[in-house]
Amino acid sequence: MTNEISGLQRVAANGLLDRRLVLKTLALGAAATPAMAQSVADGQPEWMLTPGATTDPYGTRSRFEVERTKRFTVPPGGWGSTGRSIAAFTPHHLTHGTITPSGLHFEVNHHGIPDIDPDQHELIIHGMVDRPLKFSVAQLENYQSETRAHFLECSGNSGRLWAPEPTPATLDITHGLLSGSEWTGVPLATLLDEAGVQKGASWIIAEGGDSGSMSRSVPLDAVMRDSMIALYQNGERLRPGQGYPMRLLNPGQEGNTNVKWVRSIRVTDRPALTRFETSTYTDLMPDGKALQFSLDMEVKSVITRPSNANSLPQPGVYEVTGIAWSGEGKIARVEVSADGGKTWAEAALQEPVQSKMLTRFRIPWEWDGGPAILQSRAIDETGRVQPTRDALIAARGSKGRYHFNGIHSWGVGEDGSVAHVYA
Amino acid sequence: MTNEISGLQRVAANGLLDRRLVLKTLALGAAATPAMAQSVADGQPEWMLTPGATTDPYGTRSRFEVERTKRFTVPPGGWGSTGRSIAAFTPHHLTHGTITPSGLHFEVNHHGIPDIDPDQHELIIHGMVDRPLKFSVAQLENYQSETRAHFLECSGNSGRLWAPEPTPATLDITHGLLSGSEWTGVPLATLLDEAGVQKGASWIIAEGGDSGSMSRSVPLDAVMRDSMIALYQNGERLRPGQGYPMRLLNPGQEGNTNVKWVRSIRVTDRPALTRFETSTYTDLMPDGKALQFSLDMEVKSVITRPSNANSLPQPGVYEVTGIAWSGEGKIARVEVSADGGKTWAEAALQEPVQSKMLTRFRIPWEWDGGPAILQSRAIDETGRVQPTRDALIAARGSKGRYHFNGIHSWGVGEDGSVAHVYA
Repeated sequence: MTNEISGLQRVAANGLLDRRLVLKTLALGAAATPAMAQSVADGQPEWMLTPGATTDPYGTRSRFEVERTKRFTVPPGGWGSTGRSIAAFTPHHLTHGTITPSGLHFEVNHHGIPDIDPDQHELIIHGMVDRPLKFSVAQLENYQSETRAHFLECSGNSGRLWAPEPTPATLDITHGLLSGSEWTGVPLATLLDEAGVQKGASWIIAEGGDSGSMSRSVPLDAVMRDSMIALYQNGERLRPGQGYPMRLLNPGQEGNTNVKWVRSIRVTDRPALTRFETSTYTDLMPDGKALQFSLDMEVKSVITRPSNANSLPQPGVYEVTGIAWSGEGKIARVEVSADGGKTWAEAALQEPVQSKMLTRFRIPWEWDGGPAILQSRAIDETGRVQPTRDALIAARGSKGRYHFNGIHSWGVGEDGSVAHVYA
Repeated sequence: MTNEISGLQRVAANGLLDRRLVLKTLALGAAATPAMAQSVADGQPEWMLTPGATTDPYGTRSRFEVERTKRFTVPPGGWGSTGRSIAAFTPHHLTHGTITPSGLHFEVNHHGIPDIDPDQHELIIHGMVDRPLKFSVAQLENYQSETRAHFLECSGNSGRLWAPEPTPATLDITHGLLSGSEWTGVPLATLLDEAGVQKGASWIIAEGGDSGSMSRSVPLDAVMRDSMIALYQNGERLRPGQGYPMRLLNPGQEGNTNVKWVRSIRVTDRPALTRFETSTYTDLMPDGKALQFSLDMEVKSVITRPSNANSLPQPGVYEVTGIAWSGEGKIARVEVSADGGKTWAEAALQEPVQSKMLTRFRIPWEWDGGPAILQSRAIDETGRVQPTRDALIAARGSKGRYHFNGIHSWGVGEDGSVAHVYA
């Protein structure tokens, strides 16, 4: 029935179809099965034969889903001295939409997760301020709050893609240090205004309540623009792995600056040069020098289905979908290619498109059973375009470990298998 | 310092302040505490003295939060014959933002929760169609999908407010049969188009895979407009209490029509008159007749803080916040009164305002320690205005149990206590 797809609906080579196409009577990749009307009366499944389970006070996942979790890696050589450093990756091949379930939000914990009693926790704002102030959780609850959806991305996300050879690692390991949430909290500008920032101040130094006092310096102008002390994630209090009872949220900036379990904000006139802004999270350039404080996460996208974790069972029409994001603002456009970047078609963006948040994109694609290379390219509202990997390496070399935002390629084989390739 | 609040910023009687006011140096209800700069060095809390806990593959809540759950009620006389019927309420006094955590989404389960193996589950579309079709979960995963945020509200939500006396029940029990989620799934119109709806068809009958085969009739035009077969909630597969592995979602319609564990969609030319559209979920009018199929949930709002579950510790400036929603579209405006409806001020609406989704509203309020009656009034984009309780009862009588959407009143006492009142 694929001959019902007219020439007009084909928008780029190798099977990409118009994003507005409503599919019906197409040869779907895993098509519906014709059913006899009496199928529905063909006996009942066993779970309909007895009353169901009682309701839980806090609903949990199906027993058929509980194996679908974050995975872990420890980088070569391990991290830190506590044996508690770890990276846990969001499985984007199993999630959908734009919100990441809180239980599947990525985590990079350098000193383990502290067990904080919220009634004992305090945030202090001090340094170059007129009135040093302390805030309990209960005090912050009475302030005027804000709710905003934002992504968080570790600057090490996709770091494997700097390597000279494509990686067999699955999508979660290459792109899973990235998640999206709805955050609610108090604008940090409100609290800093109350404390009275002094003339000459230009940075804050945020310190976490973990055993390593994880600390980062953040420019004051970025903080005053849109940082918040977040108390809620996806409607409920932050989970411990996300900074319970409060974290600093710096929308669009590399994940590590979003200090979890935050207990101190010190206002200063210079950065502190902490461990995590000197020994790590810097970008080594071809000339041997390193960029520090390259905090803004640049425009980027990745196709999450199909992926090397979900292959194609047979030729037919599929949804190609993925996520795009930019630390500079809203996503303006995402283009998809099925021929390794020779021709491009515009994907549909899921509304509402939100600033500094994951944006879901989709386009129908008819796979004819031949080889294909699927790519996505994101453009943000500032006009920044996701670069090819070659262009990125030409500009920055390949000695770095962080801030890889190049176009990503999935190679589709004739057997429907999907693998990471360079193209 | 409250004299810094100028006359211009006062926008309605009894302390309501301009919604655009950024509060600083005000007498906050639970103000920040002045801190000496050395406070931060006053020793470290015990959780900083040893390495923290390891990371969980699926992050869970803090041990200080796990008691914050849904509560249950069983209506007088109990429900059903299985002993598994139950209502579980979202604790809106503990949540914030617009997304309800999936674990805290309300549930009304009439026959318990079935334990469905997703590989064995099928959805059949049949009746007045050209091609009856069956769909597995895997087949639906390859269709073109959509992601949309929508509220669900049981039509019995706030049913206690039809009673002649105010209720001592807390906010969760009066307004907790209401939740908001990001849903991802396949538009039902896509599947119905593929099956080929026949001339003369005007209803669908949706049947669940629970032991009672919970079934509801829904007008076909509403279904073709925006219904979906939802597979994901807040990024992950539906939880069992929400219909795992798939549910019907009819945005803006009473909760019970959003059939969970959906296994059959039968296209017909008339409603089925099932148990849950005859013996319950009908609106008894003053003349003894009952309205059937009053499915659209009308414009409504409630203040969630302060509430009779969170009182006011002392006079000062507070955030008054709550949620507004309409089954007809977007919320256009929410007004708040602190004097029982004599004067009103416009609240700030959290962007993005989404159609048929919870909208968070906020306004600053200076409580002077005297008596106050807090109310909210929502207006939607169709111009519908949330009615007073008196107007609602004048129109519909008070024999009904469902579809109460009247203005809700919190009475604030001089001791800071908050109670439900009629005003």
